[in-house]
Amino acid sequence: MNFIEKYLKAAQKNNSLVCIGLDSDLNKIPKLLSKSRDTLFEFNKKIIDATVDLVCAYKPNMAFYEVGGSAGITSLKKTIQYIPNHIPVILDAKRGDIGNTNKMYAKEIFEYFGTDATTVSPYLGEDSIAPFAEYQDKLTFVLCLTSNPGAKDFQLLEVEEKPSINKEGKPLYKVVAQKVKDWNKNNNLGLVVGATFPEQLKEIREMVEDMPILIPGVGAQGGDLEKVVQYGTDKNGKMAIINSSREIIFASAEKDFDQKAREKALLLRDNINQALKQK
Amino acid sequence: MNFIEKYLKAAQKNNSLVCIGLDSDLNKIPKLLSKSRDTLFEFNKKIIDATVDLVCAYKPNMAFYEVGGSAGITSLKKTIQYIPNHIPVILDAKRGDIGNTNKMYAKEIFEYFGTDATTVSPYLGEDSIAPFAEYQDKLTFVLCLTSNPGAKDFQLLEVEEKPSINKEGKPLYKVVAQKVKDWNKNNNLGLVVGATFPEQLKEIREMVEDMPILIPGVGAQGGDLEKVVQYGTDKNGKMAIINSSREIIFASAEKDFDQKAREKALLLRDNINQALKQK
Repeated sequence: MNFIEKYLKAAQKNNSLVCIGLDSDLNKIPKLLSKSRDTLFEFNKKIIDATVDLVCAYKPNMAFYEVGGSAGITSLKKTIQYIPNHIPVILDAKRGDIGNTNKMYAKEIFEYFGTDATTVSPYLGEDSIAPFAEYQDKLTFVLCLTSNPGAKDFQLLEVEEKPSINKEGKPLYKVVAQKVKDWNKNNNLGLVVGATFPEQLKEIREMVEDMPILIPGVGAQGGDLEKVVQYGTDKNGKMAIINSSREIIFASAEKDFDQKAREKALLLRDNINQALKQK
Repeated sequence: MNFIEKYLKAAQKNNSLVCIGLDSDLNKIPKLLSKSRDTLFEFNKKIIDATVDLVCAYKPNMAFYEVGGSAGITSLKKTIQYIPNHIPVILDAKRGDIGNTNKMYAKEIFEYFGTDATTVSPYLGEDSIAPFAEYQDKLTFVLCLTSNPGAKDFQLLEVEEKPSINKEGKPLYKVVAQKVKDWNKNNNLGLVVGATFPEQLKEIREMVEDMPILIPGVGAQGGDLEKVVQYGTDKNGKMAIINSSREIIFASAEKDFDQKAREKALLLRDNINQALKQK
């Protein structure tokens, strides 16, 4: 089953567009787990057990495992294996190197870790994305417009293409969105668009139609959640993967951390579904 | 000692601007090493032993180690520890995530692996680069203009900044170069500029003065090496780190692979020094 099929089935079964980001920072994991032989894995296991019927995907973030060296890599691999096969795993790695090197990253992410999807940087262009796109059943989300302040430094700059297809210029992230759409021959590319830019999300969704969009940056406040859901989903109210990490997994530092995580995930799922009804 | 001091000392001692890229692809390593307990490390050890008096830096590429999972991470750590302390190590990782995540990558690269420098992607802007730049003694090379065909997809697009400081627009890679120069408060940022763009390298060098530039993509042919050296070095004939990977480390698949690697490195060093004389 390819990523899109797996995602749609999980979203249907769990009635959910929620993706939980496993940004499992050792410094924030409840102290009661600190004596485990594999704290990262034990923490993730509890979070997964408590939320597996509420999500359409999990998204472990490589950085939080890599920082632990080879032991961290082992915890990550165990976590990915622990996630039930019917829930897709997006390994958030944001790699971006020349083709020869990205071939190795793609092999690591899709073969060694056996995940269903990943995130990549667009900066090196088409031949850098190709080694990921060659895995036809896997989905590759290309960074388009990120949720952080630095998005303004380059992504929002006006770009003029030569030969110009748009005399007025358009921001870089839109050029990225358009090119990724053009490159999407295998129907296995997607975009990452931060929840902090709802108006731009609307334009991107119109541009890429039913391409999957991974949307991080939904805050504890949930301020713009309604807009994010209405603008970020496709015409069928699908194809958005709405990620929340810290607000869910670190909802409590006490013994009940997994139940608190469940409550947060449930709330997010219900708020999303509420917003979908109004679409 | 910070990266720049260490690099200058190594370059002086070995009379060399050569950086050897340890892109140690298991599929290309001589078969005679395939029965080692740690093939990647044994291969690197031999390459380092044969070339340590000919380089200004080594640059292991993370992808080729990560693909081996936790065992690969161990090989990489052993390799980095094996490189003598007077030769700087640039860990080529090209990471690029939001600040919170890049903090973990910076910790991994500079603390867990204990390297002197790394490479990062600019796409997420200033706050994504900050966690690396906070390590004042370490050098962070920001991707500017890469050597691959996909460089044209985004890096070469004309950008118009608003409020415009350049009414005529300029290519994205130049905006990146200018911003990195502006952000270089700690004098610990650099750029990556591919050897395949010598004319652009000249402009970038003029723009950033004596900022370190890491230059990959010097081919077996060595076609543009003369221009790369003359345009890429600063006014003192320094601050360029000229990288060659596959052409050196895979010069032979036979028992003499390390000596063949030495010959290639020696040739590159001498050709660079020849070109420097004509500067």
